[in-house]
Formats: sequence, C-alpha cells, structure tokens
Amino acid sequence: MVNFEVLILGSSSATPMFGRNPSAQILRADEQLILIDCGEGTQMQLSRYGIKANRINHIFISHLHGDHYLGLIGLISSMNLMGRKKDLKLYGPKGLDEILDIQFKYSDTQLNFKLHFVETNPDTAELIYENQEFKVTTFPLEHRIPCTGFLFQEKASRAKIDVEKVKKYQVPVQYLPLIKDKNDYQAPDGRIIPWQELTLPMKPTRSYAYCSDTRANPSYLPYIKQVDMLYHEATFLHDMLERANETYHTTAHQAGEIAHYSQVKTLLIGHFSARYREIEVLKEEASKEFSNTHLAIEGCWYSI
Amino acid sequence: MVNFEVLILGSSSATPMFGRNPSAQILRADEQLILIDCGEGTQMQLSRYGIKANRINHIFISHLHGDHYLGLIGLISSMNLMGRKKDLKLYGPKGLDEILDIQFKYSDTQLNFKLHFVETNPDTAELIYENQEFKVTTFPLEHRIPCTGFLFQEKASRAKIDVEKVKKYQVPVQYLPLIKDKNDYQAPDGRIIPWQELTLPMKPTRSYAYCSDTRANPSYLPYIKQVDMLYHEATFLHDMLERANETYHTTAHQAGEIAHYSQVKTLLIGHFSARYREIEVLKEEASKEFSNTHLAIEGCWYSI
Repeated sequence: MVNFEVLILGSSSATPMFGRNPSAQILRADEQLILIDCGEGTQMQLSRYGIKANRINHIFISHLHGDHYLGLIGLISSMNLMGRKKDLKLYGPKGLDEILDIQFKYSDTQLNFKLHFVETNPDTAELIYENQEFKVTTFPLEHRIPCTGFLFQEKASRAKIDVEKVKKYQVPVQYLPLIKDKNDYQAPDGRIIPWQELTLPMKPTRSYAYCSDTRANPSYLPYIKQVDMLYHEATFLHDMLERANETYHTTAHQAGEIAHYSQVKTLLIGHFSARYREIEVLKEEASKEFSNTHLAIEGCWYSI
Repeated sequence: MVNFEVLILGSSSATPMFGRNPSAQILRADEQLILIDCGEGTQMQLSRYGIKANRINHIFISHLHGDHYLGLIGLISSMNLMGRKKDLKLYGPKGLDEILDIQFKYSDTQLNFKLHFVETNPDTAELIYENQEFKVTTFPLEHRIPCTGFLFQEKASRAKIDVEKVKKYQVPVQYLPLIKDKNDYQAPDGRIIPWQELTLPMKPTRSYAYCSDTRANPSYLPYIKQVDMLYHEATFLHDMLERANETYHTTAHQAGEIAHYSQVKTLLIGHFSARYREIEVLKEEASKEFSNTHLAIEGCWYSI
C-alpha cells in the first residue's frame, strides 16, 4: 500500500459541543475508504471534507452508544438516494441490524444495494476482514455496553527480486514468482538459497489501532502492541479519574501510559468531553507519559 | 404572546448538501421553545445558534423519513446527559416510540425525565395540544408514508378594559373580570353594553402552519387558510414536476400557488433538493405566484 492514513470527522464525546462532532473517522488504505464509527452528522462531515460517501465499502462500528452510530441510518439512506448499487459491508455489535431494520421499515426504504451485516464479538479477538492488502481484527474493550476496538494491519506484499543476486546465483526465470512469494530456492547443486538473499529488503508493514470508548484495561494491550498509530479515547483529564471509571472512560494520563507501555509509535487522542472548551490541556497531560501524542483534530489527515 | 417567531435549523431535503442541514425548526411562542422536526445534526445546530436544548418541552415530528427525525435520539440522549428532569412531550407518527425504545435498549439508556409520546393521526385533523397561549392542530399531508402538517395558533388573550368607557357606563368593579373574558354587561336599567364597547381593540391572533413533505394537494388548504406564515416545502423547480409527483414533493411554483390560494400573509419555502447549489431560483419561481415569499435560511429568525 502507498497511502495509509486517517481523517478525523468527529472528536467529541457523547454531547457534541464547541463545534466538535461525535466519533467518526475515515481510514484510507490505498484506494479503499473505510469508515470507523459513524456518529450523528457523519454524512455532513464527509461532504464538508470532500469525501464521496459512495466510495466507502466497509463500515466498522465499535458499540451502540449514539455518539458512535447515530449517523449510520442517514448515511446509508443517502448512499441509496445517490444511486449506490455496490455492496456495503457493515461490522458492528448485535442489535445494530435490528435498529436499522426498524427504521427502514417505518421510512418504507428499500435499498438498491446489498447491505451485509457482520456481527462483531465483544468477548474475544477475531479476524473479521482481510483482503490482499490489509486485515482487520476486533478485540474487546471494557465499556458500559459491549464494545470492540479495531486493529487494521497492512499485509506484507510480495518480495521484490534483487536482480544482481538472481544473476549471481543463476536462478532460472520460472522460479522468480515463487521467490517473490517467499519460497527459498534450491540450486541444481542442492544448496538452499534463502528467499531473503534473493530479494530486496522489505518495507515494514504498518498498523493502526482504534480504541473508541473504554476503561484503561491491560487486557487489550496485546492487540495494540507496537502499532504505528494508536487512536485512543482520552475523554477526561486525570483529575476526573473517578468520573472516568464510573463512565467507563479513560483519562489523558492513562491514554499516554497505555501508549508508552504498548510501545506504539504515535498516539492520537480524541473523544473529548464537552467540559473542555480548549483541548490542548489533554494533549499536555498525555504527552508527559508519551511524548509523541497528537490531538485528533476534525478535518485533519494523519499519516500512519 | 409577545414573541412568536421561527428559527430555521435545517433547510435541506433528504440528502444534506452545500452545508445545508436536514429539516428542523424552533418555534418560539413567548418563553416556550418548540422543536418542529428534528433531522440529523439538530443538536449541533441548536448549539451553533445558542439554543439550550433543555429549554425545549415539546417536539413535533411530521413523519418518519430520516431527514425529519434522525436527530431525535441524539438530542434526547444529550438532554439526559445534561441533567434534564423536566418532562418532555413528543408528538409524532406511530412507530416513533418503537424506534426510540430499541435504541435506548441497546445503548442501555435510562432517562432521568419522563418522555410522553403522543401519536399523531395521519388521517384526520386533530387538536393535539393547547395551553393558555396557543394551540396546535395536526392535519394530513400527502406523502409516501404517513405525514402530518402542524398548525400553531395563538389564542386570543383576555380583553383589556377601556378605563374611560367603564367610568362612562359606571360598571361596578366586580364585573370587570367577566368583561375581560368577553361577556357583555347588563346595566341596572336593563341596557346591554357589548364587551367590545368596554374594552380596547384586540390585537389579531397569529398563526403558523408547517407543511414538511407533501404533494401539492387541495385537501389541506382549509387548515392553512389565511395563516400569518406558511412554511411549505419547495423541493424542486417546476421543470421537475414529474419527479416531484413521483417522490411526493412540491415544486416552488406549486408552493407559491398554494400560498396564493390560501391567502396567507407570508410564505417561507424550504426542504431544498441537493440538486440546487443556489436556491435563489426557487424563490424567484415561487414569487411569481406569491410575491411575499422568503427562503428558509439556516440561522435566521422569522417573525410571524
């Protein structure tokens, strides 16, 4: 993949305030546009930032609190009105299909495309999607209702042949596809030449983890370990720890700690409470634990 | 009532475009704030225009197409998070309560206030609310699914005593409350003095009619006759009449005709299709039939 980047469409927690919108992000994985969460107003945010809704083919919903999914029915209805024919895949918790169906029933909406719903598992990590370029794994978060995080991992592409080495070892041309697929080469004299010896060094694969709403909990750290970018909620400052625990949320201090312990490269914090007009203080607090921290700012693209 | 005015929060039809939002309006009737329709993003629009959501005690929903109600669940949830205790009355079509209940169920939401749902009747006009100052009547519109218009009518207040006349006819003071309530006065000599003779001229009562989504249809004209302000959808220009009929909508030309035939004072048009970046053309078309036509512009208050 060439492009692997995320656009923030919403950065607020439950009550949208100060012009901030509820959770939604676009992950661009080359030409694929993936929507992660879809708070109220997502279709308007897409339009504001020049994203054509019908280029989205996969939508991942973390949980069924309104600020993470209420924009879905409007977005799907608009996709339909705009003439969509392509299938749409929707991944989310049990009940999401029921919520959509009842609204389609009363609005007498017939979709002109196929909507595939894939129920996520809130109890254990699961690979729920993969194509040639990337794969998506869900993992359990600790929230008041069932909630999953998402791990998007770039897949290693085929290796690139090192032309000089191939000449040196006199590898016949018909073996090259096998070597690209990481098979070693056995020379006529019986010697084994490892595929790494015959190919150029590979670019490391990139990964993005999304932790929408959760208490800080060590159980999900294995899934976000060493990711290139971790989006983690940081609803409150740490002086509100009690409130964070009561409401199953994380403080900025905790988000920084999590990024530190998980050895991620970059931390992006969001889901800011309506109590903070200025959000720089949240970044300052998280940065003390993990210096490479950024605020999720609506309308900004972050390269992974 | 002193204040009787409407604030436009959304002016777009089904697909929000060009920064326009789906249908929603605030009607201010003195200190009462009434929400009429509640498209996606209404809570953000309220915040943008400085309206405190918890000052709203009555919400009227015309029909169950998403662009008229999808903001409701987010708004009600935010009212709850902001600590609402006061009852909220919600008027809308059959099914709206079911749509809300299923979403409260999956989000595990318990409201800390009482939400009274009043089902509207799509088949016949009905008085559904009145207080001392105004009353609200629903009336059937012709849309693809059950849909009602709303007529908000100021009630005549008590008459004001004309002090000079009361002296002249020597009306005993204990009769004054009866005269204020428009009872005639019988003098000791048997003469009847009409209450109008004893009071100051009354200010005419004002009325506002809201026709959200409908085909132009003579059946609802009696309900909007001679209103001070008619809000009427004008989704398309008249060259799209066939499309308007197919989708159960009105053209700007038809909206102008309706205002003309109904002898309203002012016409406010809205629900503009996403096909019109510039909406002035819709006003021009309607104005040819009815000169006192205004565009519903988001963020503007219109005095009734």
